[in-house]
Amino acid sequence: MTDTTTETLNTAAEQENKQINVGIVGATGYTGLELLRLLIKHPNVNIKVITSRTEEGTVVSNLFPSLRGLVELKFSEPNSPLLKECDLVFFATPHGVAMSRAQELLDNGVKIIDLSADFRIKDSELFKDWYGLEHVCPDLLQEAVYGLPELNRKEIKTARLIANPGCYPTAVQLGFAPLLKHKLISSAEHLIANCVSGVSGAGRTAKINNLFTEVSDSFKAYGILGHRHSPEINQQLQLIDPQARILFIPHLMPAIRGIHATLYARLNETGRSIDLYELFQTIYKDEPFIDVMPGGSTPETRSVKASNLVRIAVSKPQTDMAVILVVEDNLVKGAAGQAVQCMNLMFAFPESTALGQVPILP
Amino acid sequence: MTDTTTETLNTAAEQENKQINVGIVGATGYTGLELLRLLIKHPNVNIKVITSRTEEGTVVSNLFPSLRGLVELKFSEPNSPLLKECDLVFFATPHGVAMSRAQELLDNGVKIIDLSADFRIKDSELFKDWYGLEHVCPDLLQEAVYGLPELNRKEIKTARLIANPGCYPTAVQLGFAPLLKHKLISSAEHLIANCVSGVSGAGRTAKINNLFTEVSDSFKAYGILGHRHSPEINQQLQLIDPQARILFIPHLMPAIRGIHATLYARLNETGRSIDLYELFQTIYKDEPFIDVMPGGSTPETRSVKASNLVRIAVSKPQTDMAVILVVEDNLVKGAAGQAVQCMNLMFAFPESTALGQVPILP
Amino acid sequence: MTDTTTETLNTAAEQENKQINVGIVGATGYTGLELLRLLIKHPNVNIKVITSRTEEGTVVSNLFPSLRGLVELKFSEPNSPLLKECDLVFFATPHGVAMSRAQELLDNGVKIIDLSADFRIKDSELFKDWYGLEHVCPDLLQEAVYGLPELNRKEIKTARLIANPGCYPTAVQLGFAPLLKHKLISSAEHLIANCVSGVSGAGRTAKINNLFTEVSDSFKAYGILGHRHSPEINQQLQLIDPQARILFIPHLMPAIRGIHATLYARLNETGRSIDLYELFQTIYKDEPFIDVMPGGSTPETRSVKASNLVRIAVSKPQTDMAVILVVEDNLVKGAAGQAVQCMNLMFAFPESTALGQVPILP
Amino acid sequence: MTDTTTETLNTAAEQENKQINVGIVGATGYTGLELLRLLIKHPNVNIKVITSRTEEGTVVSNLFPSLRGLVELKFSEPNSPLLKECDLVFFATPHGVAMSRAQELLDNGVKIIDLSADFRIKDSELFKDWYGLEHVCPDLLQEAVYGLPELNRKEIKTARLIANPGCYPTAVQLGFAPLLKHKLISSAEHLIANCVSGVSGAGRTAKINNLFTEVSDSFKAYGILGHRHSPEINQQLQLIDPQARILFIPHLMPAIRGIHATLYARLNETGRSIDLYELFQTIYKDEPFIDVMPGGSTPETRSVKASNLVRIAVSKPQTDMAVILVVEDNLVKGAAGQAVQCMNLMFAFPESTALGQVPILP
Repeated sequence: MTDTTTETLNTAAEQENKQINVGIVGATGYTGLELLRLLIKHPNVNIKVITSRTEEGTVVSNLFPSLRGLVELKFSEPNSPLLKECDLVFFATPHGVAMSRAQELLDNGVKIIDLSADFRIKDSELFKDWYGLEHVCPDLLQEAVYGLPELNRKEIKTARLIANPGCYPTAVQLGFAPLLKHKLISSAEHLIANCVSGVSGAGRTAKINNLFTEVSDSFKAYGILGHRHSPEINQQLQLIDPQARILFIPHLMPAIRGIHATLYARLNETGRSIDLYELFQTIYKDEPFIDVMPGGSTPETRSVKASNLVRIAVSKPQTDMAVILVVEDNLVKGAAGQAVQCMNLMFAFPESTALGQVPILP
Repeated sequence: MTDTTTETLNTAAEQENKQINVGIVGATGYTGLELLRLLIKHPNVNIKVITSRTEEGTVVSNLFPSLRGLVELKFSEPNSPLLKECDLVFFATPHGVAMSRAQELLDNGVKIIDLSADFRIKDSELFKDWYGLEHVCPDLLQEAVYGLPELNRKEIKTARLIANPGCYPTAVQLGFAPLLKHKLISSAEHLIANCVSGVSGAGRTAKINNLFTEVSDSFKAYGILGHRHSPEINQQLQLIDPQARILFIPHLMPAIRGIHATLYARLNETGRSIDLYELFQTIYKDEPFIDVMPGGSTPETRSVKASNLVRIAVSKPQTDMAVILVVEDNLVKGAAGQAVQCMNLMFAFPESTALGQVPILP
Repeated sequence: MTDTTTETLNTAAEQENKQINVGIVGATGYTGLELLRLLIKHPNVNIKVITSRTEEGTVVSNLFPSLRGLVELKFSEPNSPLLKECDLVFFATPHGVAMSRAQELLDNGVKIIDLSADFRIKDSELFKDWYGLEHVCPDLLQEAVYGLPELNRKEIKTARLIANPGCYPTAVQLGFAPLLKHKLISSAEHLIANCVSGVSGAGRTAKINNLFTEVSDSFKAYGILGHRHSPEINQQLQLIDPQARILFIPHLMPAIRGIHATLYARLNETGRSIDLYELFQTIYKDEPFIDVMPGGSTPETRSVKASNLVRIAVSKPQTDMAVILVVEDNLVKGAAGQAVQCMNLMFAFPESTALGQVPILP
Repeated sequence: MTDTTTETLNTAAEQENKQINVGIVGATGYTGLELLRLLIKHPNVNIKVITSRTEEGTVVSNLFPSLRGLVELKFSEPNSPLLKECDLVFFATPHGVAMSRAQELLDNGVKIIDLSADFRIKDSELFKDWYGLEHVCPDLLQEAVYGLPELNRKEIKTARLIANPGCYPTAVQLGFAPLLKHKLISSAEHLIANCVSGVSGAGRTAKINNLFTEVSDSFKAYGILGHRHSPEINQQLQLIDPQARILFIPHLMPAIRGIHATLYARLNETGRSIDLYELFQTIYKDEPFIDVMPGGSTPETRSVKASNLVRIAVSKPQTDMAVILVVEDNLVKGAAGQAVQCMNLMFAFPESTALGQVPILP
């Protein structure tokens, strides 16, 4: 991790006249709210339109009182013509919406960052298996760039259409990628990702399962027999090592934000002999949002709360076993922050613009 | 508070052959679940039928895994004929259900404890104002006995139909009653009840407002311009002092269970000179579930968690002002426990039977 | 509340060459940490020295991993000579430290903002009664300016020594001041402040009482017979109305941050007839950090989380009674944010510089 | 799991005249408090003495207000002569105390259940490595019986000295034992136990790390390079399969109570072909406190809160991989409840006596 604040300020000064118009489709959930929190402080962004299926006409800050005095907009209708006048549209919608609207926007020269899963899985059959939807624009699916800057920065810069990664896949890929790239794992088909999420990952929808009274003071696994992020993780890891296969077990914790991944990989001889901290440190040293902590560290999810940072610690509690701990804020690096990072790359703004928040602790 | 364990055990032994059949209408919420938790350990109760509008046919322990191995029943249809074969039926239903079913059950010799508000407010016009429902059985409304044993024990013993008190009104009445009875307040029309509730008071229904992500790590007032428990509190306090008028401000805290009441009353000359701790101690000394703590104490809601206990501390931080702190578990003494206490009185079981749980701390 | 973002940016540009050196004494607690979070993003501040009695030599980000990559400093010894080279020193220390060090620093031309209580209570006898300490510099006590910008902005601008207000007193004063100033209260000697604080108000010290296991899922009053913020509140309110006398009952809630005040005042005839929302709105309309919400609103503490905002809602649930609800983040507007706001005024920076954080929700 | 309520009541009736005197050494922590909660409702137990190093003379219910009205005792001095007059003494002390006192008590005919780790690890060298203490009574160490009834019931019945298992080891053993016993694992040296604990596992001691403000709304691993429960787990699993070796990674969650274990084991051919649910169901069908849930279930920690129950679900998310989920209450089945279960066995009381609490949900 390097502190890019200075760089950011200088470059921002140079680009200070550049302004883009941005639209957000479906901003009534937590991802949309988090996008708003970040974008209203972005010096190069003008939020032109926010749409909602259910809240058309509502003043945004009436729904989200944390934004009172900061956002003047009302929610527009889902098909607002203003969307076509934007430079960029974010989709913070349920799965299925973005793919039905993408072509028209792209045809109008609007770039897209889709925070749903519509463009994450390249194999449209696999997509259908997991999401229960026929993909309506398989061509765009192939064109879409997977928006994980640490692995895909170059492609993101020139992309028209970004598939913003899932929250769990972000943490799992950032943790396993260095080992896979450097061929340090003896049984890549036996990777284990034991992950934990805060409740905001379940979204802002009225479900008994996510009531305070159901979730608080408790802990459980879920999706044990198959979670939609499994195929996404496998697809991405297999781009690095075709043998890679994940056993992904997500859990729900009584916290608002945060992803914690505990990753297990059996090391081969090279992996056993190498200094893994040094490896991770080298690989991520120029990344503005990756903090590699000393071996034996145990990063807390709160150490990245409300920031775009990821902290990683790798250790070998047994000689043939690597345990990688990864923490992120699921709503920032796991969703809205990553989307803004992609936007910055796509429009040649300094990558950290509007992403310099210090984690909130306590 | 006296420890009635020994008494309970002896008397239970004497009555050990007495068994009643009990039905629960609407046991898919937290109040119904709490009734089940208490009743399955009651030596004199046979749970004959549990009904549900939405879960007919579901195995109860599939809905509430905490009951696996403890309850074999399935939910029956709302109008199950088994209800009429019960000695007692509890209504743990939304407002409006109990009053539509009460007459028929009573006609069949079934006693009723209604945990909803249908029979709490004697003035049917006032009931309509606050609950938006025309009362369908005003005669029964007059017959119903308000089920607060500490104030109404004698009437409860012989009642056919019990209006189980609201959670807030229980705490507020137990705190203010001694001062009003002994005419110690200089301005009874200016009583203030600043109350706080855990989220389980909002029930087990899917509402965005009660999501973990909306409630956790936050605090707010609600119902500031009028809460349904205000007329109930006023009605009951005015039975003691017709001048009594409450300003009741409820708040929501990020805890599962618990009611905390901070009560303010301006004292008259007698009130200023009297030892309030001694007064409360004397009044409640034979009550099995009231613990009067020394003046200056600050009872915690967790000190009564999952028990039927109420702890009260009274002090005079200013010479002319009494502050009474009251804590209870809203699901036990504020709902299901109080209902079981009433049942014990109605069927001449020892009053504490099945209510001897030690509070869960931590 | 007005959005001062634009103004801030412009003015910041004008002053962008102005830099001050700042020291923090005692930055191992939450107030010190929060100061760091705010100051490292302040364009006009260079943090020159951070001292600690217990952590001398420790890398700051080892103690607070949320600051890894953002702060390079180590903790210095408490009497570091660098303090005298600062333009401004913040004291985030236990009571008693600032008054023992203030004179020397002032003599060296260093301005001081004291976040402890050493300079809050003008009457040194009263100070001794409540804090158990003889005041060692009564002259400075008289000179010190109470740092509540909404009531004292002019004096703060020219002050050498600021007594930063307590967290509760900030909320209580902002809520009662408009009513007292406009003489709308019939019994000012009977003001009630029923307040609730998150646990961070108790500081970062190892006490059983503040363990997760002791505080979580519970609620209690404390300091019922007298809290140190009572004399501070009384002193300040009596500057407006000498009759004012507060009954202040603080409570502890299971949340990390947040103050929620529920204030009760009996209205006189004028008060009963006036539109209180309009009054508050008028009084606070130019304040950058005060948001007056429509009557009947119930502000949540999370709606200001991690921001310097205060939200206020005033209503009349009874014709002769005003209830004012005030929320703030105890670590920001209740401590470090208010201190930075004072600093901005003292050094003629735009008042909102480095205080533009959007509240974190959820 | 079988419902043993009926059996318990009958047998209790038969033995109702049998009473034992019990002492508790060190009851100022959560384990001691939980022992009290269970024992004061045990019909065959008379609590004769409770000792404390730090609280001698304090009324027990002053320290633990949840026990007001339920326990009359004061804390006695640590070496109270009353201990020798007991039939059984529980040690709920820091490591090192029980082994220094055991011989004298045993010599006086007092049985012992030690809830600390003093007698858990048979190899005194290994004990010293992990606990930093020379074992002072290696003979007793060999005599001590490991108090896990599901694996060791027969030996417990006749034991004088019980080493009560650690909280994590209880969950891990109950989950892995069936697979190891039936030789279903292909690489027993590669067992992974990814475990999560509530904060009460850290005890009732004043540590900054366990403050509400440090733990709430966050999640982290700890002890990543070695936790004292690893050698205990290895020792016990190796009694079943000498090849067994655990990689144990504990985590801390923001909940008061609860252990959640996610166990991973690579299956051999037999394991792949067998119905694991049926296997677990068969093995545990007569156990009063083990509930084997259908495959694919994801037990919540709250489903056993404040009860002695363990819920287990086993599934095969990949054909060659078993994932076993185990939940328990760390203070009950993970500590005090298990100790009472052992006591019941040692004194021929029905095994479930005083352990019939229904889990508290919500």
